[in-house]
Amino acid sequence: MTIEAGKEASDHGRIRLGMVGGGQGAFIGAVHRIAARIDDQFELVAGALASDPARAKASAKELGIADDRAYGSFEEMAKAEAARADGIEAVSIVTPNHMHSPVAKAFLNAGIHVICDKPLTTTVAEAEELVTLVRGTGKIFVVTHNYTGYPMVRQARAMVANGDLGDIRLVQAEYLQDWLTERLEVSGQKQAAWRTDPARSGLGGCIGDIGTHAYHLACFVTGLELDKLLAQLSTFVEGRRLDDDVQILLKWKGGAKGMLWASQVAVGNENGLTLRIYGSKAGLEWAQENPNQLWFTPYGRPKQLLTRGGAGAFSEAGRVTRIPSGHPEGYLEGFATIYAEAARAIRAARAGEKPDREVIFPTVEDGLSGMKFIDAAVKSSERGGAWIQMT
Amino acid sequence: MTIEAGKEASDHGRIRLGMVGGGQGAFIGAVHRIAARIDDQFELVAGALASDPARAKASAKELGIADDRAYGSFEEMAKAEAARADGIEAVSIVTPNHMHSPVAKAFLNAGIHVICDKPLTTTVAEAEELVTLVRGTGKIFVVTHNYTGYPMVRQARAMVANGDLGDIRLVQAEYLQDWLTERLEVSGQKQAAWRTDPARSGLGGCIGDIGTHAYHLACFVTGLELDKLLAQLSTFVEGRRLDDDVQILLKWKGGAKGMLWASQVAVGNENGLTLRIYGSKAGLEWAQENPNQLWFTPYGRPKQLLTRGGAGAFSEAGRVTRIPSGHPEGYLEGFATIYAEAARAIRAARAGEKPDREVIFPTVEDGLSGMKFIDAAVKSSERGGAWIQMT
Amino acid sequence: MTIEAGKEASDHGRIRLGMVGGGQGAFIGAVHRIAARIDDQFELVAGALASDPARAKASAKELGIADDRAYGSFEEMAKAEAARADGIEAVSIVTPNHMHSPVAKAFLNAGIHVICDKPLTTTVAEAEELVTLVRGTGKIFVVTHNYTGYPMVRQARAMVANGDLGDIRLVQAEYLQDWLTERLEVSGQKQAAWRTDPARSGLGGCIGDIGTHAYHLACFVTGLELDKLLAQLSTFVEGRRLDDDVQILLKWKGGAKGMLWASQVAVGNENGLTLRIYGSKAGLEWAQENPNQLWFTPYGRPKQLLTRGGAGAFSEAGRVTRIPSGHPEGYLEGFATIYAEAARAIRAARAGEKPDREVIFPTVEDGLSGMKFIDAAVKSSERGGAWIQMT
Amino acid sequence: MTIEAGKEASDHGRIRLGMVGGGQGAFIGAVHRIAARIDDQFELVAGALASDPARAKASAKELGIADDRAYGSFEEMAKAEAARADGIEAVSIVTPNHMHSPVAKAFLNAGIHVICDKPLTTTVAEAEELVTLVRGTGKIFVVTHNYTGYPMVRQARAMVANGDLGDIRLVQAEYLQDWLTERLEVSGQKQAAWRTDPARSGLGGCIGDIGTHAYHLACFVTGLELDKLLAQLSTFVEGRRLDDDVQILLKWKGGAKGMLWASQVAVGNENGLTLRIYGSKAGLEWAQENPNQLWFTPYGRPKQLLTRGGAGAFSEAGRVTRIPSGHPEGYLEGFATIYAEAARAIRAARAGEKPDREVIFPTVEDGLSGMKFIDAAVKSSERGGAWIQMT
Repeated sequence: MTIEAGKEASDHGRIRLGMVGGGQGAFIGAVHRIAARIDDQFELVAGALASDPARAKASAKELGIADDRAYGSFEEMAKAEAARADGIEAVSIVTPNHMHSPVAKAFLNAGIHVICDKPLTTTVAEAEELVTLVRGTGKIFVVTHNYTGYPMVRQARAMVANGDLGDIRLVQAEYLQDWLTERLEVSGQKQAAWRTDPARSGLGGCIGDIGTHAYHLACFVTGLELDKLLAQLSTFVEGRRLDDDVQILLKWKGGAKGMLWASQVAVGNENGLTLRIYGSKAGLEWAQENPNQLWFTPYGRPKQLLTRGGAGAFSEAGRVTRIPSGHPEGYLEGFATIYAEAARAIRAARAGEKPDREVIFPTVEDGLSGMKFIDAAVKSSERGGAWIQMT
Repeated sequence: MTIEAGKEASDHGRIRLGMVGGGQGAFIGAVHRIAARIDDQFELVAGALASDPARAKASAKELGIADDRAYGSFEEMAKAEAARADGIEAVSIVTPNHMHSPVAKAFLNAGIHVICDKPLTTTVAEAEELVTLVRGTGKIFVVTHNYTGYPMVRQARAMVANGDLGDIRLVQAEYLQDWLTERLEVSGQKQAAWRTDPARSGLGGCIGDIGTHAYHLACFVTGLELDKLLAQLSTFVEGRRLDDDVQILLKWKGGAKGMLWASQVAVGNENGLTLRIYGSKAGLEWAQENPNQLWFTPYGRPKQLLTRGGAGAFSEAGRVTRIPSGHPEGYLEGFATIYAEAARAIRAARAGEKPDREVIFPTVEDGLSGMKFIDAAVKSSERGGAWIQMT
Repeated sequence: MTIEAGKEASDHGRIRLGMVGGGQGAFIGAVHRIAARIDDQFELVAGALASDPARAKASAKELGIADDRAYGSFEEMAKAEAARADGIEAVSIVTPNHMHSPVAKAFLNAGIHVICDKPLTTTVAEAEELVTLVRGTGKIFVVTHNYTGYPMVRQARAMVANGDLGDIRLVQAEYLQDWLTERLEVSGQKQAAWRTDPARSGLGGCIGDIGTHAYHLACFVTGLELDKLLAQLSTFVEGRRLDDDVQILLKWKGGAKGMLWASQVAVGNENGLTLRIYGSKAGLEWAQENPNQLWFTPYGRPKQLLTRGGAGAFSEAGRVTRIPSGHPEGYLEGFATIYAEAARAIRAARAGEKPDREVIFPTVEDGLSGMKFIDAAVKSSERGGAWIQMT
Repeated sequence: MTIEAGKEASDHGRIRLGMVGGGQGAFIGAVHRIAARIDDQFELVAGALASDPARAKASAKELGIADDRAYGSFEEMAKAEAARADGIEAVSIVTPNHMHSPVAKAFLNAGIHVICDKPLTTTVAEAEELVTLVRGTGKIFVVTHNYTGYPMVRQARAMVANGDLGDIRLVQAEYLQDWLTERLEVSGQKQAAWRTDPARSGLGGCIGDIGTHAYHLACFVTGLELDKLLAQLSTFVEGRRLDDDVQILLKWKGGAKGMLWASQVAVGNENGLTLRIYGSKAGLEWAQENPNQLWFTPYGRPKQLLTRGGAGAFSEAGRVTRIPSGHPEGYLEGFATIYAEAARAIRAARAGEKPDREVIFPTVEDGLSGMKFIDAAVKSSERGGAWIQMT
């Protein structure tokens, strides 16, 4: 239970970071910045924080970014930073979805590592293009499926890998919110506006915004690959242009089954991401809103409540744990773990090495997998709920 | 918050009750007997408690049933009791599923009211036949979907009917157990043996044993009718002859969607029947293992935890509540409410009247609906997960 | 997990039971009657159900008690029933506290077993007198500290006795309600009226009504005896004549410490009886409102959630368990266990034997212990919060 | 729900911070550093991180502190930093308790603001001396009673102040841990060693380490002042030199009563700080391990579960909230709020102004109050549990 990150920072200095998006009025940009600060591995030194140049510069000023590194466009930023001796080593992309791909390409081509919000792109084709580009450039590419940064999610993954559950039979994922219960997008609320706009979100609404998180989490913890899915996407709020609820049947390779339900109209749910896994020997249950706990339920024995930092914790959880059990770590710490892992990978890349095997983060391939999931779900639903074979 | 049942008992005497099934080694028979005693409306005076005559008589002796009313077969019992001046007024049928239909027919034809365990029969055809017979004889027929007897389930139903949720959008039901995680049926465990035997259970295993409970509960609370379903039934335990897990997508008439998941291999779950309903204005969440609570989640206001007998209780809940809030009522009291409602209906029938409008119990038509649900789910699954139109 | 009670009933017939108190408008009388019915060991055949003879007879009629056994006074009843060949074998006393002692004496002297509500009496002297009388007559005397009937309370007691907690260090008991937050006793509410009236309740209000339950539970589970206490009794509601909140420091013989807090003005608490015990090796936590669960927390190992009927249950819990895990048993079943244990003791007495060692119920000595506890707490508080040595 | 801190940082630059204590092997120093980073208001530029000069320098190197500002002693650091034009503006004191007073005095006298861990000192006299010094120098002095930084604690305080609970009747505080269940201090564990050593901890063990947190929290939320207390301190682990459990009865000015229980041997509890408050109109319940929730229980209405950032949140909670409801904030964010408030006060002081009225942090007077609480509890216990009048 130690905070090792600080050591690395001093040995080699902080990693120079830029940001695209995340200016005034944004939500997720601020989250990325706190996450980057928590373990003291990054220093934010450049930004193209908004599509409007004036707002971009004002936002940069507020964040203490030097004037000459407050850019009006991401193209300009990629070019200028690549040219500087002290240019950024990595960029965080926190724009609406439709901009992920062009921005990522610009920075990869400029030789800069990328930390990119999810979903990866708006189409499978764009995602495949990015995979190719990442492989070609050899740059680090991290997708912020932040929920995989929680220590008890790492614990769950390690327990599955360790065989503690036996053969996996059932994988149930939910991600329930209620903030789109009414037609918030016509109220001027910026988050709601772009997330319900196909031009900026892509084909999926709820499925892309939160369904992909649930899907990635299920894959991450179980190590399973999806074989087929069948989805019904719904739009309950009249006038809305994208789905606000999605219900999916899952067939996993190897025989496991499951369901995934994501909703933004499930009244009374705030950010209810949960994962339940049942195997031939035991089960696991985890809920994001109380992330420091993990239920482990071995067949024929009493249920056990594992806690972050508590008895029974695996080293996979311990290495991303900052403070003792009973002192809750939250969403920002989980997010920070993604940045800490990115830092470890980037430092290894600085040294011309591969990161240690224990370093884990969602990759561009995971991002592509998420796009295929969205694509398949939308197709299945358009066909009235047909089984779609994953590729 | 009063116990009114006692009054009625003394005014008119207890209702004379018989039982078919429920002898030594059975589980649900004992539950029915306690349920019948709790509100003091019934007196058990006759029985054909086992298929083996010797065991039937021994079981009857243990229960204080007079020797001459301890029958070796249900046919004999129906005939003899119908002929007695003090013959039974009602019979409880607690046999394995395949016997429900023949036993029910015998007693209905003998002019005796029926309280029958679920699922109603083993085929839709049998169920339709029973509906016709019940209508023809005019007898009371109660199916023990006991979970509808819980006060907070009644509360939920009343709140939906009252419009407190607005338009229903989502109806999610789960019924999770783990007692069939291993192949218990080959161990000699009687419950497991018949429940996994198509000859005695019918076409459905898990879907019939507990899936129907979840389905009935969802219908009971929401008042919705199912339009279509799509199911994947699984048998995870090798060698098992019926499904032990079922996952279903639901389309309700009027536009609501939903999922139903029932499992007997979800390790760590004991009797996890839950219902979650979300409407345009509010949500409700209820869990059978903590049945005295009901979450009410109005949009844009704090979540409320309603309690049995507590503030905010409707009269529909109050009339089936026996003791004050904080003093938990459990499974047996919920079951007893079905018997108390049956008693009210039977007393009304004695008087040649209809029961009060507030008297509610699962009917033979509900039983038929459950059989159609099982049938549709099995068909859907056999067709590889196709949508089935309910009729 | 079997319901054995039924067997015994038929072997020897039901025990003939009378009741004093519990007429129209009462609460606890109805609870006793349901509890007596659940396991089918008793038959209610006589009663002096109210202090007003007319109301007593009307109440009896409602309950199906024969006219000639509906008495206008308990004295008359004790005399008449003792004289009948088919007279009652046991009486349930469910009057306000001040009547417990005279009624109990009358029936004990008439050779009838007694099941008496708590607290035992209104003074220590009366309680001591009863102890002497019980010993002299050799009759069974059961005090309905009903919370000791819960299976998980039996489990807790067995685990402590088994040494699973090591040396007990801390014993914390709470019993929190809120129904007397306002001055309900002036509203005509009958329960509130007598419970806040020193003439009918005795010296203690909250301490007698619920504090004794918490105290008995702590003693029952731990097997410890109290050495000293120091109490502050409070009356928060203006005009109230007895305490509505009590906070007590405890020193147990052998070195354990603890606190006991009972309140009837803790807004938001319905019937919040909880017990927490910590030893040198492990802890236990139990809460009455969710009585089917018990937390077991061994030092240095994950917390375990034990469930009624689930893995890890001891036989001491299993023998008072009626239905499988996940099917909640509640307050009435816990209460019924006290009656079932009483029945076992009474049947043994019929046979001139001692009950089996495993038969456990709260005795007249436990009732005396509760009175001493009330007495000491009142004295301590009157002295401004002084330590009182228990005797 | 905005993160405003960043703005201030850029307007005026980050506050230059030093640290005393918190070198290799320490726990709370790292917590302070993360807390200081989260809202980007501070930059750590100097330190005397350990009592051993070599370890102090090594620790500083790991944290990226320049060599010439890595001091071997706090005296040297205070002097040197005061002399620099770019010297630190504030110092964090994270040493064992006995060093708080000398270090604080050195920096106050050097004109440097102080952020100091709790308890304030080891004696009341030292604490009074510090109060005088702070008043004399006019410097900002913040005691890190970090639990007051949680948004829902702010919410609770605002609701009490708003009269939502009516007159406060009961204030119950608990702080339960189990990490000292065995004699950890002889194992070489550094945290356990100094916390159980009177020379480094002061008179109180558990009472000083965590009891003071619970006490401060109760005072902070209710705004009440303590009138009298009566304590029993216990040392359950043989050979331990300070208390490991403390149970206290409380009489608050104005008539409220309460209990405070802190333990480090309550097996199964990790960091169980809870507060329950009941008034004439409503109650509140909060638990540190699930800090994003607050129960509000108005009399005669359903219980409400308030959530951080959710419906019903007051502005007092909103201004210290970083991310939306359902995205849990944890211990580090609560701690960071203390630093953010400190930053606001320090920036106001820079400008020669008083901080806004809404800025709240635990002051040196609160620290003194905590010392008086420890002192009174120890005295009460030494006198066998006598009432002590607070002064």
